[in-house]
Amino acid sequence: MMTNTPVPASIVDEKIAALEVEEIGNASIREIVQLVSSIEAATGISYIRMEMGIPGLPPSQVGVEAEIEALRNNVASKYPQIDGIPSLKSEASRFVKLFMNIDVRPEGCVPTVGSMEGSYAAFLVTAAREKEKDTALFIDPGFPVQKQQMLVMNQKYLSFDVFDFRGEKLREKLESYLSKGNICNIIYSNPNNPSWICLTDDELKIIGELADKYDVVVIEDLAYFAMDFRLDLSKPGIPPYQPTVARYTRNWVMMISSSKVFSYAGQRIGILIISDLLYHRHSQNLSDRLRVHGFGNAIIHRVLYAMTSGTSHSAQYALAAMFRHANNGTYDFIAEVKEYGEKARIMKQLFLSNGFEIVYATDIDKPVGDGFYFTISYPGMDEAKLLYHLLFYGISAISLGNTGSSKQGLRACVSNVRRDQFADLETRLNQFHRDFPADL
Amino acid sequence: MMTNTPVPASIVDEKIAALEVEEIGNASIREIVQLVSSIEAATGISYIRMEMGIPGLPPSQVGVEAEIEALRNNVASKYPQIDGIPSLKSEASRFVKLFMNIDVRPEGCVPTVGSMEGSYAAFLVTAAREKEKDTALFIDPGFPVQKQQMLVMNQKYLSFDVFDFRGEKLREKLESYLSKGNICNIIYSNPNNPSWICLTDDELKIIGELADKYDVVVIEDLAYFAMDFRLDLSKPGIPPYQPTVARYTRNWVMMISSSKVFSYAGQRIGILIISDLLYHRHSQNLSDRLRVHGFGNAIIHRVLYAMTSGTSHSAQYALAAMFRHANNGTYDFIAEVKEYGEKARIMKQLFLSNGFEIVYATDIDKPVGDGFYFTISYPGMDEAKLLYHLLFYGISAISLGNTGSSKQGLRACVSNVRRDQFADLETRLNQFHRDFPADL
Repeated sequence: MMTNTPVPASIVDEKIAALEVEEIGNASIREIVQLVSSIEAATGISYIRMEMGIPGLPPSQVGVEAEIEALRNNVASKYPQIDGIPSLKSEASRFVKLFMNIDVRPEGCVPTVGSMEGSYAAFLVTAAREKEKDTALFIDPGFPVQKQQMLVMNQKYLSFDVFDFRGEKLREKLESYLSKGNICNIIYSNPNNPSWICLTDDELKIIGELADKYDVVVIEDLAYFAMDFRLDLSKPGIPPYQPTVARYTRNWVMMISSSKVFSYAGQRIGILIISDLLYHRHSQNLSDRLRVHGFGNAIIHRVLYAMTSGTSHSAQYALAAMFRHANNGTYDFIAEVKEYGEKARIMKQLFLSNGFEIVYATDIDKPVGDGFYFTISYPGMDEAKLLYHLLFYGISAISLGNTGSSKQGLRACVSNVRRDQFADLETRLNQFHRDFPADL
Repeated sequence: MMTNTPVPASIVDEKIAALEVEEIGNASIREIVQLVSSIEAATGISYIRMEMGIPGLPPSQVGVEAEIEALRNNVASKYPQIDGIPSLKSEASRFVKLFMNIDVRPEGCVPTVGSMEGSYAAFLVTAAREKEKDTALFIDPGFPVQKQQMLVMNQKYLSFDVFDFRGEKLREKLESYLSKGNICNIIYSNPNNPSWICLTDDELKIIGELADKYDVVVIEDLAYFAMDFRLDLSKPGIPPYQPTVARYTRNWVMMISSSKVFSYAGQRIGILIISDLLYHRHSQNLSDRLRVHGFGNAIIHRVLYAMTSGTSHSAQYALAAMFRHANNGTYDFIAEVKEYGEKARIMKQLFLSNGFEIVYATDIDKPVGDGFYFTISYPGMDEAKLLYHLLFYGISAISLGNTGSSKQGLRACVSNVRRDQFADLETRLNQFHRDFPADL
């Protein structure tokens, strides 16, 4: 039974009604943001806001200073090259070598307006390579907006929840799709949004082998680059390196975002990396469909040209500088974001102490790391009910159903929660646990 | 007969061969840029470069200073709202009122990554409103990259050259398309890229009336806002105003670019303006296709979200400041770009004195203005031959065939030509005219 909850039930219900969504459990991230902001405005109560992956840190000052200098040099009037300024391309290539131990030419390193634009372009062009291969395959759970991209492009996709297919089981599951001949790509994020699971090297090897066997392109979303804090991935040129499928196939593109790892979300700058082999691969269908030769040219001179004709000129200087300083060992970007892992450790403990469970708890035989996201469930409540009830206790998140997960639960993002809110979080969870005594 | 031309014929031919295009007359803008840069690098000769619409002026310092201030305030780490920061939305609404005398709510003023992203989104959503209306209609000549957008989206389009259909003749021509029932929108730029013709108010009225009669959306590209220097459009709140179809229909979107009028091309920031009526129009097909209600929501929460999730946060502050100062009368942005008109007047005279003709010469009964572009032809030469031969004389441009024109000729852009090159231009044109004595 709910007692006198921190947020009056009547206001929560009123604001949910005003949102005009059919079911709160299906609300999008931005809809939950809007809902919680409106409840906060009406009540003056600060939520523990875990619904959106907003960087909670100031932006990389290396980036800000470089961007200001570029603006002082009047880059604002000049169209940037569509494939990126040369210094960004070469520093990105070095970054991939030094932090992943993967060789790629600067040619294949192409800035995009956030990794959103990179994935949009990659989805479009991978689906244009062969006529019969018209369907994307997501290894879910995943970032909901990528499915929206499929909707906007009117492209077909399939997906499955990796929960029950970890390790060698992944091979058979993937092959059950790939063997049909209609799959054009395999998409996943690593570390994973929303579950923070990380595919193991054995799993990445399976994906790479099958990409070669069936000639599909792996699209690896590295939005949380090097943020598996269980490993120290922060030293340029020194192992261990960020795990990647690029060790096991040459049929890959990756997206590296500046939003989280450099806290640079506002400037909408990411980089799409295309393997040397794939960049120059041709196909008749691609030439017919986009009237251009080669995968790299299709991405740059057709899709990115048509979408935005390049990326903010000054932000390219920012990203070039952040990569350069990281490459030179003069900017420890991981040190700045480790705070997310520290907060996750504490917050997970608060949830676990109050009857909650972690949904995606392990990478096969190891506990998942503490990072940007974690997943929670509560005994006896489906995710819509849990999301709804937590709103009364001043806690917000998004449902896993939004992410292609087959499990009932919520994604919790730590970035936007301040340490000075932990006491509130504990009090509210205590009351929730008393009101819904799951373990009785 | 070509004499000893300024640029050795052998080098021009060698670089054209290296470009691997089937026909130089069909080369894209960026391909010509690449070609001329490579010839310049090989010969040390500076071309009169008229192929690309690069701003030849420094960026608006109002914008640069506001952008630097925003970066100092750490906006780089924060996701911008997808529909734009409030100050930009309200200043854009004021700008449309003060310089066009059109009312639009801030809600419908949405920043985009250049007008490229704005047109991409508008093309996609207008084509999704009704199932049978699946074909765009361009009033050509036009910006070639918008046709590339159609290619990338795999959307259908038709077009016609307005040359022979000015004035009242435009009505019958448009109606011959619209009456078939498959047209979803009407697209044009005003002032026109490449011809610098401006549709008259009578013509805009025809377009507006037919947009209502057939329920199609007019997409008005104002990339060269207020740059018809025959009129003084520079005074906020004082007529005359920038001509627009919005006086004659409520079925419109417009794109206002910062690239040319504020010399802000590098930052990739434009603004899409959606009429109050259209913003809230619903249709069953739109809801089915994009799972969203309303035109404005489809643009913002589906297409722009999926393409780039918003626009550079700092650049939004720049554009807000440029609009605000223009609105307040403290920034005469037209004074800064009038130089283009002055240069066009002189350059056109140099071409006309050497046997060239202006292809698009009049707006019905008035000579076209002097502005960012003009169009040229030469007796006895088709456009491919003219483009090719001018390269030997150190002069570059793009062919009108690229722009949907039915006329033979070239588009010349004045922006990137410096006044200190005019003597060279004259000498080269004199020699060209001697070598190809058109009027003999």
